[in-house]
Amino acid sequence: MIPAVDETHDPALRSWVESANEGSDFPIQNLPFGVFRPADSMVAPRVGIAIGDMILDVGAARGAGHFTAAAGEAAKACMAPALNDLMALGRSAWAALRRQVSAILRQGSSAAAARQELLVPMADADMMLPARVNDYSDFYASIHHATNVGSMFRPDSPLLPNYKYVPIGYHGRASSLLASGAHVRRPNGQRKEPDAPAPVFGPSRSLDYECEVGIFVGPGTMLGEPLPMRSAAEHLFGFCLVNDWSARDIQSWEYQPLGPFLSKSFATTVSPWVITADALAPFRIPAFVRPVGDPSPLPYLQDDDDASRGGVDLSLEVFLRTRSMRERGATPTRLSRAHFADMYWTMAQMLVHHASNGCNLRPGDLLASGTVSGPEKSARGCMLELTWRGKEPLSLPDGETRTFLEDGDELILRGECVRSGYVRIGFGECRGTILPAPAGPG
Amino acid sequence: MIPAVDETHDPALRSWVESANEGSDFPIQNLPFGVFRPADSMVAPRVGIAIGDMILDVGAARGAGHFTAAAGEAAKACMAPALNDLMALGRSAWAALRRQVSAILRQGSSAAAARQELLVPMADADMMLPARVNDYSDFYASIHHATNVGSMFRPDSPLLPNYKYVPIGYHGRASSLLASGAHVRRPNGQRKEPDAPAPVFGPSRSLDYECEVGIFVGPGTMLGEPLPMRSAAEHLFGFCLVNDWSARDIQSWEYQPLGPFLSKSFATTVSPWVITADALAPFRIPAFVRPVGDPSPLPYLQDDDDASRGGVDLSLEVFLRTRSMRERGATPTRLSRAHFADMYWTMAQMLVHHASNGCNLRPGDLLASGTVSGPEKSARGCMLELTWRGKEPLSLPDGETRTFLEDGDELILRGECVRSGYVRIGFGECRGTILPAPAGPG
Repeated sequence: MIPAVDETHDPALRSWVESANEGSDFPIQNLPFGVFRPADSMVAPRVGIAIGDMILDVGAARGAGHFTAAAGEAAKACMAPALNDLMALGRSAWAALRRQVSAILRQGSSAAAARQELLVPMADADMMLPARVNDYSDFYASIHHATNVGSMFRPDSPLLPNYKYVPIGYHGRASSLLASGAHVRRPNGQRKEPDAPAPVFGPSRSLDYECEVGIFVGPGTMLGEPLPMRSAAEHLFGFCLVNDWSARDIQSWEYQPLGPFLSKSFATTVSPWVITADALAPFRIPAFVRPVGDPSPLPYLQDDDDASRGGVDLSLEVFLRTRSMRERGATPTRLSRAHFADMYWTMAQMLVHHASNGCNLRPGDLLASGTVSGPEKSARGCMLELTWRGKEPLSLPDGETRTFLEDGDELILRGECVRSGYVRIGFGECRGTILPAPAGPG
Repeated sequence: MIPAVDETHDPALRSWVESANEGSDFPIQNLPFGVFRPADSMVAPRVGIAIGDMILDVGAARGAGHFTAAAGEAAKACMAPALNDLMALGRSAWAALRRQVSAILRQGSSAAAARQELLVPMADADMMLPARVNDYSDFYASIHHATNVGSMFRPDSPLLPNYKYVPIGYHGRASSLLASGAHVRRPNGQRKEPDAPAPVFGPSRSLDYECEVGIFVGPGTMLGEPLPMRSAAEHLFGFCLVNDWSARDIQSWEYQPLGPFLSKSFATTVSPWVITADALAPFRIPAFVRPVGDPSPLPYLQDDDDASRGGVDLSLEVFLRTRSMRERGATPTRLSRAHFADMYWTMAQMLVHHASNGCNLRPGDLLASGTVSGPEKSARGCMLELTWRGKEPLSLPDGETRTFLEDGDELILRGECVRSGYVRIGFGECRGTILPAPAGPG
């Protein structure tokens, strides 16, 4: 069952952390989990919960006796330097912890007196990857993205016949998952111009981003044991933002017949705060309604719950700040805004499809949605689509132009859920800046 | 530099473990590493070295003071329940340990007196996966396999234009890597007959194996730092056998445009003994010589050392034992025999290509070669090729036929290196038996 709205979503709730009450991404109704380390320290990373511009140190709160037995197991799992143990516990443990954290941070709580011990300013913390990701899989769930890209790479068959039946995905590279803020080196690789007799090796000339939504798996599944749709929500801990950096020239040359490999594996950036499925309960909406004439999903991908609330009313924005903008102190410029509700497949369908062959999922596995693009030009979630493979360069406010990313460019993803009668939930940022390519090997 | 032949390869060496001197896969010249646990026990898995039909318990040998300081660090790394720590240490540590293990197991060593404490019979041990594999990548390095498969799936363009330039690969699934001997459930999945209007979901009807060679990464590489060919051998700990189980009907429907996913991720079986690059020094041969007219590899994939000794003179055999053969006590029947020397790309080229975009490799990462097929029909390394997609069923000795694998079929991969003047090195077995598909989800 998809989590229900409860008292922790009450828009009247306010926190004794004042910055949480002022339109922050992290009001007391959000309470996302992350892993942080006090900046410039060598202490082990630990689990925190974002509240306004502060981080609640869960270990400190536990040590001070703020949790009762009902949340004891979940609070103990937060002593690890990654969220995997908490993710493994399951929905009732998560909900118990959320209720108690909400109470601790609420105006009137006695915990406010221990502000100094419990809170670390975000400005004084380094954020880590939220989990040890054993396996990372990436999907292709936006039919708008698939159609746009397909019409560039395969003009004769933009949307392949399997698309409306199979939640298309592939295995990604886990080793190069990066915490938000880490710089990204432009990759070297093989590229081949259409008329050239042979490929050349060198820095990618068409480095791109992809704005995606990720989910972290909660309790795992057993090898050989598929997951029914009705149980999918029990295995979905929470959501994040993912930038699936992509070298389009490397991709177009390498991707047949086994799919993208080095065009993607040089870096994937993940936002630091995991927005729990519990926090998003007020923002669940019906899954994408397929146009008349499209086939229904096969039975193993159908579920009443999913049809009624399988979607998430989440808006995604992409911002670019070039080196010159940074030097002038200019604010980032928005490149696009898209809606996660436009995805052809829900995250539950991706989870269930992934496990349908018996493949085992483990706590902390990351599944990303693929580029989130909408039907409008302003909702295209990567530069490949925005510039139509470089043919229609973007004009930036200060007169610069871009076909793809240049060295020094900083790319920022943001996400938010807004609904009348509820407090806005933000996703924080997923951020990375491009460094020049290294000298090639050899 | 590729390891050199030294005194540990001397064919005159004999062990006080008698079974090692009698044509075993594991003579004293081999000394492969694995992770074992005494059968039916709950003790932690530990590192062992195969010798004849016994396992040297490295921890026991260390505890008894058999290692001197030169091998101290490597022996200590073997206290872990996986080989990752040893793999991370690098070539000089591995070589020091090998020299001392060779001395300990040699006829005349005082260690023979401690036989009871140092050895565990293989028959009394369960073998684990050799390493915690964080990332598993699979290549496509046999041009014969690529051409055969391509001509079935894409008759108009069997070998794609990138093949002779790019060591084609894709990311595999790490969670479903299995130790040899584990049963493999037939996967459910979507398949679509060419003339059917829509796909159906159910047990795969064309379950296949792929006979591959795997390598385990030794010391890792840093993100953003490519690996030059001249350093590749420093990062290659050892070799194993890999069975990349494949559901061909799921694969042909799902694989465009992002490559194989659920058709592979239900299970991949890995042989338990890692044959070190050191052990294989006498069997290194020149890399595959490309036919006249084929392009040279791009410079980042070229190296003198690789050209002269980048290949491995390794033969691979595939055996099948059906349920009926097992019930009758019949020996497995051989389906094919292929030579790893026929691969278009060397493992060093695959490693260097993998890191060429800055993707970081970690100790214990597994890279598999892709199906090893040769030019002869008898050297085709999967059933898809042997039966030409089911059109030419195999006739088994007892009158049974096979187009693909049936429930109850047991598949066994074996490998060996043979060279005049040296003792034969075996790879042991990579084994798995097919179980019926589970009830579908939903």
